[in-house]
Amino acid sequence: MSRKRKDQIVIVGGGFGGLYAVHSMKNSPVEVTLIDRRNFHLFQPLLYQVATGGLSPEDIASPLRSVLKNQKNARVLSGQVIDIDPQRQVVILEDGHEVAYDALIIATGASHHYFGRDAEWEAHAPGLKTIEDAIKIRRRVLLAFEAAERERDPDRRRALLTFVIVGGGPTGVELAGALGELAQHTMREEFRSIDTTEARINLIEGLDRILFAYPEDLSAMAAQALGEVGVTVQTNKLVTDIADDHVLMKDTQTGEQTLIPTYTVLWGAGVKASPLGEVLARRSGAELDSAGRVMVGPDLTVGGHPDIFVIGDLAHFAHQTGQPLPGVAQVAMQMGQYVADVLRRRRFDKEVRPFRYKDKGMLAVIGRNRAVADIGRLHFGGFMAWLIWVFVHIGFLIEFDNKVKVMTQWGWNYVTRRQGARLITGETAPVWLQLPIEREAAVEKAEL
Amino acid sequence: MSRKRKDQIVIVGGGFGGLYAVHSMKNSPVEVTLIDRRNFHLFQPLLYQVATGGLSPEDIASPLRSVLKNQKNARVLSGQVIDIDPQRQVVILEDGHEVAYDALIIATGASHHYFGRDAEWEAHAPGLKTIEDAIKIRRRVLLAFEAAERERDPDRRRALLTFVIVGGGPTGVELAGALGELAQHTMREEFRSIDTTEARINLIEGLDRILFAYPEDLSAMAAQALGEVGVTVQTNKLVTDIADDHVLMKDTQTGEQTLIPTYTVLWGAGVKASPLGEVLARRSGAELDSAGRVMVGPDLTVGGHPDIFVIGDLAHFAHQTGQPLPGVAQVAMQMGQYVADVLRRRRFDKEVRPFRYKDKGMLAVIGRNRAVADIGRLHFGGFMAWLIWVFVHIGFLIEFDNKVKVMTQWGWNYVTRRQGARLITGETAPVWLQLPIEREAAVEKAEL
Repeated sequence: MSRKRKDQIVIVGGGFGGLYAVHSMKNSPVEVTLIDRRNFHLFQPLLYQVATGGLSPEDIASPLRSVLKNQKNARVLSGQVIDIDPQRQVVILEDGHEVAYDALIIATGASHHYFGRDAEWEAHAPGLKTIEDAIKIRRRVLLAFEAAERERDPDRRRALLTFVIVGGGPTGVELAGALGELAQHTMREEFRSIDTTEARINLIEGLDRILFAYPEDLSAMAAQALGEVGVTVQTNKLVTDIADDHVLMKDTQTGEQTLIPTYTVLWGAGVKASPLGEVLARRSGAELDSAGRVMVGPDLTVGGHPDIFVIGDLAHFAHQTGQPLPGVAQVAMQMGQYVADVLRRRRFDKEVRPFRYKDKGMLAVIGRNRAVADIGRLHFGGFMAWLIWVFVHIGFLIEFDNKVKVMTQWGWNYVTRRQGARLITGETAPVWLQLPIEREAAVEKAEL
Repeated sequence: MSRKRKDQIVIVGGGFGGLYAVHSMKNSPVEVTLIDRRNFHLFQPLLYQVATGGLSPEDIASPLRSVLKNQKNARVLSGQVIDIDPQRQVVILEDGHEVAYDALIIATGASHHYFGRDAEWEAHAPGLKTIEDAIKIRRRVLLAFEAAERERDPDRRRALLTFVIVGGGPTGVELAGALGELAQHTMREEFRSIDTTEARINLIEGLDRILFAYPEDLSAMAAQALGEVGVTVQTNKLVTDIADDHVLMKDTQTGEQTLIPTYTVLWGAGVKASPLGEVLARRSGAELDSAGRVMVGPDLTVGGHPDIFVIGDLAHFAHQTGQPLPGVAQVAMQMGQYVADVLRRRRFDKEVRPFRYKDKGMLAVIGRNRAVADIGRLHFGGFMAWLIWVFVHIGFLIEFDNKVKVMTQWGWNYVTRRQGARLITGETAPVWLQLPIEREAAVEKAEL
């Protein structure tokens, strides 16, 4: 290494993986460039709380520049990487701008997909990956209650108060639980014509139990806790159609079809890797799995390029258990730290050991004070699991600022059962007009 | 009044006027229906803080249902009033739905206008009346800094770091001050290629001083305080053109034209009354002033209809001073309380006295810890004025929840000079591409 020119490390994506990689290079004699399309890190595990009005987007997002302000060897570049040239060692941004690297770390994650029905289903069933998604879901859910309050036709009112969540993984379970809490408690006394506790919340899962990645006893505990906040769990059901005013599903055992009239469908199912994986495959010869994730080597490099790493949700790492590691923050964070360590070891010509994921356990929360925890050999649910969940999540919030905000907000929500962030925003037009509600003229009666 | 049927009071608009009217009827034997297009009350005096990343929208907005949860004689109806029939005593919603009233209070406020140039200027120079406006301004301002960080051409970089705020009223002054604070302090060490303190912030005012509604000495104090956070105040200047990459203005004294190259123009000027004023004029024979405000009688009724009141920014009330009262929260709040009192007095056949506005003073804030205050005979500026401003504003936040949040957030921002709410959101596409930046390919140098 020359004394003049420091190694250029380029990291694409400011999620858990990318940010932990940057942080882990704090004291290294390198220059780090973090490239992201967005100007903030998003704490995705709490996104469902924004979607259900418990937290504001600003509570769970931190400006990347603010996070890295004091790390003098790091700079942030706002941009979208559209191409990679492994021969010339540059990444290419959307405007043609090129950024040269000595080592490249790709951590652009994943988004949802609709099993090949993206075009038809996306408009009806928003997923939950970005802040804009969360605000859209919040708007859809709240507008359904508003429309129900105005609706006089009992069938349409029932359909407006019916919610379907597709996918019984952690996202679906947490969304359903928070929605149940909202209907059963938070909004209970706020309407005059409807009873929000009559809302029907259906959680649809294709396999025979929810939280399939968890032990069976925890799936059962979660299903029971969901039942207590009014959520109906429907397993062995595949969604076959989603339309404006209904969802069609098929029982995987009996083949029986069921139609649920509803105006609000939320998507917590399929995950699709970032399109940068495909670019990388084309350019570097890396292989992709069926979900578009990049097959990485034991040291997280790809396609025989020792200078290109893929980490986080975009990486398919199966060298440890034979199965790909789950797409959770813990995995991404440990991978980010590992790559920083690999680069350090290389500088000192030290031996590089393969990546090993240390599973610190899994947590999923249901409603106001229940959760399920799978920590080592311990499986448990209830209030204790919820408390652990709260502290783990507050602990991992990136900035101290956010920790204080979320703690205050949660404390307040917990004590009052209120959720002040229930704003219908994002479109200035009165959006409830878009709900297919028949127009009728009738003098409003005071008795309503 | 029959014992069976209570008087129906319909209030349109959940701003300060409408909400204070509802609250003041808490113990009255009436049924109140509050109709609003949005599902929340917005604390507009702090909207500029959202626009500059100091607070989140959720901090300054409260769901109307949550605010009125415990007022059992009030209900909230989500809807947009598009017509009024004074003969049949009904208001008509956008879907044809009619709501009958015994007394109607219209409090739909005002928005900005562009002196007849709405179509051309609105896209270039967003105003600040809604949460969506604030998020749009936040995005525009932050994107300009992001684009400047990437820009190598010195002229374009300078234009990207030039901000123009049109209108030297309280909105313009507070926006300019907060923007100055952002550039001079908050973001100071966050960029690597640009020096944010070199940002040029121009506040353009057509009259010969800013804060024209305030005493002259306070205008001077405000201009000086603005200068200290890097804002250039330009008085006697009329904006004659706004385009993608520049603003053209003309000196009202010399006629001299000046062109300012800039990509970020914010609008704090003209105010236009809500279109419901026009509907009311057509239907009730009420008169409008040139800004579209409804001329109200001494008791705030209009057009000889004792059952129709107009309050807040939509009302032109000149019976006290010969001049219309200013469009501030205090006026709207007092009007809302007054109308509730009028209706109470009528029930008891008591004499109704004309509305009198009690001026409790005016405050405008500049940057982090300066403000100007005009309270009775006291005119003062500096830190004391700022402290008063802080406590007055926290005190008036509608819900206790918001008070706690804003207090925590402000305390944190004050101590750290950070502002965590600086998110570029609202459009998933990488929006900086829309800035007219020449595409060029050049290998990024480490020296940057």
